[in-house]
Amino acid sequence: MANTNVSIGKTRLEAFSDGILAIVITIMVLELKGPNGSSFDALQNLLPIFLSYVLSFVYLGIYWNNHHHMLHTCKSVTGSILWANLHLLFWLSLVPFTTGWMGQNHFAPMPTLLYGINLLLAAIAYYILQLTIIFSQGSDSILKKAVGRDWKGKVSPFLYITAIIASIRLPILALVIYAFTALIWIVPDKRIERLYQIKER
Amino acid sequence: MANTNVSIGKTRLEAFSDGILAIVITIMVLELKGPNGSSFDALQNLLPIFLSYVLSFVYLGIYWNNHHHMLHTCKSVTGSILWANLHLLFWLSLVPFTTGWMGQNHFAPMPTLLYGINLLLAAIAYYILQLTIIFSQGSDSILKKAVGRDWKGKVSPFLYITAIIASIRLPILALVIYAFTALIWIVPDKRIERLYQIKER
Amino acid sequence: MANTNVSIGKTRLEAFSDGILAIVITIMVLELKGPNGSSFDALQNLLPIFLSYVLSFVYLGIYWNNHHHMLHTCKSVTGSILWANLHLLFWLSLVPFTTGWMGQNHFAPMPTLLYGINLLLAAIAYYILQLTIIFSQGSDSILKKAVGRDWKGKVSPFLYITAIIASIRLPILALVIYAFTALIWIVPDKRIERLYQIKER
Amino acid sequence: MANTNVSIGKTRLEAFSDGILAIVITIMVLELKGPNGSSFDALQNLLPIFLSYVLSFVYLGIYWNNHHHMLHTCKSVTGSILWANLHLLFWLSLVPFTTGWMGQNHFAPMPTLLYGINLLLAAIAYYILQLTIIFSQGSDSILKKAVGRDWKGKVSPFLYITAIIASIRLPILALVIYAFTALIWIVPDKRIERLYQIKER
Repeated sequence: MANTNVSIGKTRLEAFSDGILAIVITIMVLELKGPNGSSFDALQNLLPIFLSYVLSFVYLGIYWNNHHHMLHTCKSVTGSILWANLHLLFWLSLVPFTTGWMGQNHFAPMPTLLYGINLLLAAIAYYILQLTIIFSQGSDSILKKAVGRDWKGKVSPFLYITAIIASIRLPILALVIYAFTALIWIVPDKRIERLYQIKER
Repeated sequence: MANTNVSIGKTRLEAFSDGILAIVITIMVLELKGPNGSSFDALQNLLPIFLSYVLSFVYLGIYWNNHHHMLHTCKSVTGSILWANLHLLFWLSLVPFTTGWMGQNHFAPMPTLLYGINLLLAAIAYYILQLTIIFSQGSDSILKKAVGRDWKGKVSPFLYITAIIASIRLPILALVIYAFTALIWIVPDKRIERLYQIKER
Repeated sequence: MANTNVSIGKTRLEAFSDGILAIVITIMVLELKGPNGSSFDALQNLLPIFLSYVLSFVYLGIYWNNHHHMLHTCKSVTGSILWANLHLLFWLSLVPFTTGWMGQNHFAPMPTLLYGINLLLAAIAYYILQLTIIFSQGSDSILKKAVGRDWKGKVSPFLYITAIIASIRLPILALVIYAFTALIWIVPDKRIERLYQIKER
Repeated sequence: MANTNVSIGKTRLEAFSDGILAIVITIMVLELKGPNGSSFDALQNLLPIFLSYVLSFVYLGIYWNNHHHMLHTCKSVTGSILWANLHLLFWLSLVPFTTGWMGQNHFAPMPTLLYGINLLLAAIAYYILQLTIIFSQGSDSILKKAVGRDWKGKVSPFLYITAIIASIRLPILALVIYAFTALIWIVPDKRIERLYQIKER
């Protein structure tokens, strides 16, 4: 029964995280307010908001995806994991705000910079959650083996920082870096999948 | 345990999709803002918004329903399925926006056209998801047998394209086609249900 | 495995319904917009909106509660049940709109009348769902035995219709009837609970 | 099977509560409307709204966390528990409103007072839910043993009342007390975790 108990705790953590991520993704679309006119021109003004939405949708999809793989390796849920997870959800919950501000201002420097800071803080929160789970699993941590050198996790903050600096002078470059970083992550962490399958045999 | 593991992955995919669909359906109602007056006349102006809401509610209900049957046949969740699913959810998440714009503009040509494009892109995304699941299941795919010739899936895009073209001159015809296509789909895919029951005996 | 299959379908139906009900309950609070001033007087104008919120919160709580008990007796989920359930969710999804309009207009006749129509249509949809489940269960339906004469289900529509008529001249009477009907339902259907416990022994 | 039945009821209660809490947490971010300008100064005006958001995010995180531990000890779900739970969710659902009003008015006395009343009523509702579960569990209640003297539960209302009184003259003191009370609770109830682990061995 101890096992059932633990897995229920994990199930609820996953369900709660999924709930928040699903809502965060969906309320972003509330920024896409129908333009006043009914012409095609009226729609064109929404293009930057739409593009910001696409970018953030992909980012939140990546987070959901990786979160899903990461928690898979997690056997028990401790209080520290709960709070590290809430910390990650906090930064992700701000994405609709920073996305909307960036889109509405047609990728002006300051909103593009703030978007990058949001991504950076979410990445740091994800890294803290990863460390917390590895720590709770002890020396034979599946996640530790799976993550390995974790070059994506290590490179991303530098890319975000580069983009944040770039956004002051050249916001378009920042956007290219944000999109590029998303592309790196779109491939799910095959290493976790592989190791997990080996373990289960 | 490998089986449990896979089914948890699928459960989370379903829960996440349900979460997003539930929110998408519900935030559409936020477009129905209470009119300023408290008279019955004030309410009448909301009629086109209400009718758009009904249409989109039915469409999202159909997608939830068919998505539910389709994932039923899915044994394991791969990275490709996760992303094909997110792609479908992306286009469905735009439905509240296109619905609201169409309703607010009393079915003007351009918004009615955009609504059709949204439906078309969602249909294509659904088709891609279907192919991805069939591909992952290999040669003895349950879904492939169940879907069979899939006349609904093949006819719908043509109906949407016809409606999109019609909406430029005759938006009312486009609406009739949208409603008609919804009617075709309301009947759940009996073939999947039937085949599945046979398999399980 | 057939049994697992069926219960997964039911689980997803429950999860989707819970999701929609949870969102419907919560977005109602978006009607409670912070008043412009920061004084206590500014807050008083929100009182009718707050009272409408309380009433609708209780009603949606009742629906969730009874829905929960009703689906408990449901062994298998058919296409008809899925659509009867979506039909119920449709009318419940309109509650935030009718609640907001009634509150903003300080219980004026027409909005109070519309609120009653919404409650009436939701009650009819609930009744249709109940019939659909009983029909699908066949002659030894648990739900049929549990519901018995169903005096609450039969009395409520008459109370709603009385309130709808009353609201034209005396909206305050309509509100009293809405609150009274809610009170009748707050007691969960002990009969279902009792019968179900007997069956499980 | 009786056991499965009970646990499904509990699962749905947890899922519904999680759904509402997830939405309540997330819609708070809708208060953070992108400022009109794209400058850093425009952003600074949002600081009080942001700080209110952080405070309420932490409070709702604490409630989710403790709710999670409390329901863990709950074997069966009665009608009284369902309603005591809905009562708690009602007060928590008002948090986005009181948070938004407090932030928009830069912590003016009246909104800060109302925020405290909201926290107080949620705390009372939590206490009632706790009593209801203990009562339903009978004399060998796990929760009763786990909660023990419950000094946090007893001290919090006094802290809230002190803050409410303080907010009339010195809102900043009220905020310090709100933050301090949150800090007390951030540590999850180790006692429940400990007792539960003993029981399960």
